[in-house]
Amino acid sequence: MSTKKNSVKPSLSRGMRDFTPQEVVSRQYLFGVIKQVYQLYGYQQLETPAIEQLSVLTGKYGDEGSKLLFQILNNGEYLADVPAEDLTKINYQRITPAITEKALRYDLTVPLARYVVMNRQHISFPFKRFQIDKVWRADRPAKGRYREFYQCDADVLGSYSLQYDAECLMMMNVVFTKLNLPRFTLQLNNRKILLAIAEVWDFQDKFQYFAQAIDKWDKIGEDGVIRELGQRGFTENQIHKVQMLFRLSGDNASKLEELNTWFNSNEMGKAGVLELFQILEHCEQNGMPEGVIRISPILARGLDYYTGSIFEASINDYPMGSIASGGRYDDLTASFGLDGVPGVGMSFGAERIFDVLTDLNLLPNATEYITAVLVLNMGEENSTIYAKVTYLLRQAGITADLYHQPAKIAKQLQYADSKKWRYALILGDDEISNNYYTLKDLKSGNQHILDNFTALVSFLNQTSIND
Amino acid sequence: MSTKKNSVKPSLSRGMRDFTPQEVVSRQYLFGVIKQVYQLYGYQQLETPAIEQLSVLTGKYGDEGSKLLFQILNNGEYLADVPAEDLTKINYQRITPAITEKALRYDLTVPLARYVVMNRQHISFPFKRFQIDKVWRADRPAKGRYREFYQCDADVLGSYSLQYDAECLMMMNVVFTKLNLPRFTLQLNNRKILLAIAEVWDFQDKFQYFAQAIDKWDKIGEDGVIRELGQRGFTENQIHKVQMLFRLSGDNASKLEELNTWFNSNEMGKAGVLELFQILEHCEQNGMPEGVIRISPILARGLDYYTGSIFEASINDYPMGSIASGGRYDDLTASFGLDGVPGVGMSFGAERIFDVLTDLNLLPNATEYITAVLVLNMGEENSTIYAKVTYLLRQAGITADLYHQPAKIAKQLQYADSKKWRYALILGDDEISNNYYTLKDLKSGNQHILDNFTALVSFLNQTSIND
Repeated sequence: MSTKKNSVKPSLSRGMRDFTPQEVVSRQYLFGVIKQVYQLYGYQQLETPAIEQLSVLTGKYGDEGSKLLFQILNNGEYLADVPAEDLTKINYQRITPAITEKALRYDLTVPLARYVVMNRQHISFPFKRFQIDKVWRADRPAKGRYREFYQCDADVLGSYSLQYDAECLMMMNVVFTKLNLPRFTLQLNNRKILLAIAEVWDFQDKFQYFAQAIDKWDKIGEDGVIRELGQRGFTENQIHKVQMLFRLSGDNASKLEELNTWFNSNEMGKAGVLELFQILEHCEQNGMPEGVIRISPILARGLDYYTGSIFEASINDYPMGSIASGGRYDDLTASFGLDGVPGVGMSFGAERIFDVLTDLNLLPNATEYITAVLVLNMGEENSTIYAKVTYLLRQAGITADLYHQPAKIAKQLQYADSKKWRYALILGDDEISNNYYTLKDLKSGNQHILDNFTALVSFLNQTSIND
Repeated sequence: MSTKKNSVKPSLSRGMRDFTPQEVVSRQYLFGVIKQVYQLYGYQQLETPAIEQLSVLTGKYGDEGSKLLFQILNNGEYLADVPAEDLTKINYQRITPAITEKALRYDLTVPLARYVVMNRQHISFPFKRFQIDKVWRADRPAKGRYREFYQCDADVLGSYSLQYDAECLMMMNVVFTKLNLPRFTLQLNNRKILLAIAEVWDFQDKFQYFAQAIDKWDKIGEDGVIRELGQRGFTENQIHKVQMLFRLSGDNASKLEELNTWFNSNEMGKAGVLELFQILEHCEQNGMPEGVIRISPILARGLDYYTGSIFEASINDYPMGSIASGGRYDDLTASFGLDGVPGVGMSFGAERIFDVLTDLNLLPNATEYITAVLVLNMGEENSTIYAKVTYLLRQAGITADLYHQPAKIAKQLQYADSKKWRYALILGDDEISNNYYTLKDLKSGNQHILDNFTALVSFLNQTSIND
């Protein structure tokens, strides 16, 4: 190989990543666990395209979100229909819609809503779907923030049953347990409770400020929240009441009972408390371990469209934000003109969870080495035998390869090791004339002598299961 | 659900598709078979991003290909740096590069070359990688032609060994056999042979016309090819020689021997023939069945970058073009300034193969029904029992769901059937008081009585294996 002078080394687009084979295996382990649990709970996989019409996406993510859409330039003479005046004045409001009508999806939720509206006649509700797929955002790249990343969403559409709210919490618990994550907490709240608090203490008009402020609690602390409320014009009495929220203590039941007393005559508040009681009960029936769920009346969650339960998972005493979240919404498809499709959904923060697995060394051994055999090439004279053995190993379902040319054994072993292949098969003159197989385990360094091909295959099949 | 008046029904962007859960399962079956075979042969999965720098992609696909790139509009004030004069004159040559610097990948090969050049210090060669991923082309949508589709590529980089050319043919054979496709043919030729023919018969200057004309043989027939060559200025004698190519008959060995006599003093031609002999020998050693490979001296393959073996698979007597193809190239990375990276690669035409599987009813039963159990909801009074059984089934690894509310049994059965769930579990008053389980098989319509939960689980586990 040789590099020409004056040639520019190619590079990745900003915020994009290549994943090496090793990384792909590790990441697929995580996606595989999530997928398996979603399927176990009866969710079915939907696949929507990467490109959506701009009209489907605009107006769905707020001003900030809209700026982060990757818009696709129309093909052909894209400026043909733009009036000269708009070009001269650089009138983006008029030029942009004229030259682009498609964009990359920003999340998996809006495409789901679009799909449901388009196919509502053919869908049996409740519609339980999951999608594990890439999304794209033109964010400023930073540590842990990419412009292309995976979302892992599950949603149930078309039912008010709280069994599904509980299901989301259960799936978080099962996935995290399967991944061997350390102790984690699932915070649970209900938007109805927050709305009722605003009603009871008479700051409905400032509800958004209230939600935004308490949402920052883990970043700015209680003092910060209080200060922000003061700046937003909350009265001293109202601030005092909000502080009572922070003071709520005891187990989940006592917190909920205390809240209930506050909602004496507020039906929405009482409904919110009742829903949480029922969700907790569903979780208990589904084997949720004690102490995992924590009723957290100051959990607010940013997204406006939540209307019922909201929840968020995080690892205890670990410096990272939420690693999964979700909530109930009343009308996913309302923005497309279809009313009456309530639902509840959740999402795993796969990129963050992958960072945790890596950081805490929780990726399983299976992602380290592959049970695969490199047949060493020890000379042209035996090439037919090498080819035959490679063929027979593959026939037996064992990943196998023959090194492409005769070379020093050390070089070939290094090659197998660099590919994370577990074994090298040595067939030298002695092995061939005496009809046995020497298998070198590149992980342990041990050599195994196998008497015949059957023994070789059975050894390889066993170790692949036990290790 | 109700639709608001005056709301526009959302739609897909042209050439894009949604895949229903049923379609996702069927398609994943196909991708799974391909992936399994690639892995068995020692290829490792690489994942490159959907978005590449435009500078990486431009100039790689010819004029026609470049027009089909989906270019991404720069974010922010994308016209800020475009001189007013260019805008007034609508100078695309100057405006386009100023407002877009990224595009969606057009194939998986150029990103592979980019990856290899960027990471060559860390890659052990031969580098055997596969990638099964989406690509995007702004083609005019038509039946079977989409703007977003999957490619399933495997390539070996960094080796001249013909064992890998044979491996591509073997993988085609193994995948098609696993898929139970009807009889198929792998056509094999060598670019060196075509080039040598042009040399021997003295039309090197018109090689491109020659290759293009014979490539159309299956569409325009021999007469059409002859006519086209005449129009391109081939002499009568040259045309007569080309006709000899069409007349080559007999088995693979006799075709190759005949060709060898034509290349009496042409080293390249003889090398090409020898390579094909060696590839055939490798294939034979790897258990390739008789009659699958056909030496086809008029196979040309469009892509300029092939330099050695070329091959293409098709189903016998089935009205569809090639369903897999590939070939050897000398220098994948030359366009990025890195010389000396030869390789060979192949690709399955997944969209076409999927159409064949559907058309010939070859999708396995496993893609029809899912071994999953819907626990029927027969009233609030037993809801705790239903929840518990659902939980225990999931604990036992069986996909299970509880219908979200009490409803008529017929409605619930219809729901399970629409989701392609195989079983419904009936727990009525009799079952509950006498402690047994009635399982309805929605595929056969049979009902099974199971004496206890263990028997239920073991029945479900067995049928999932045997069916």
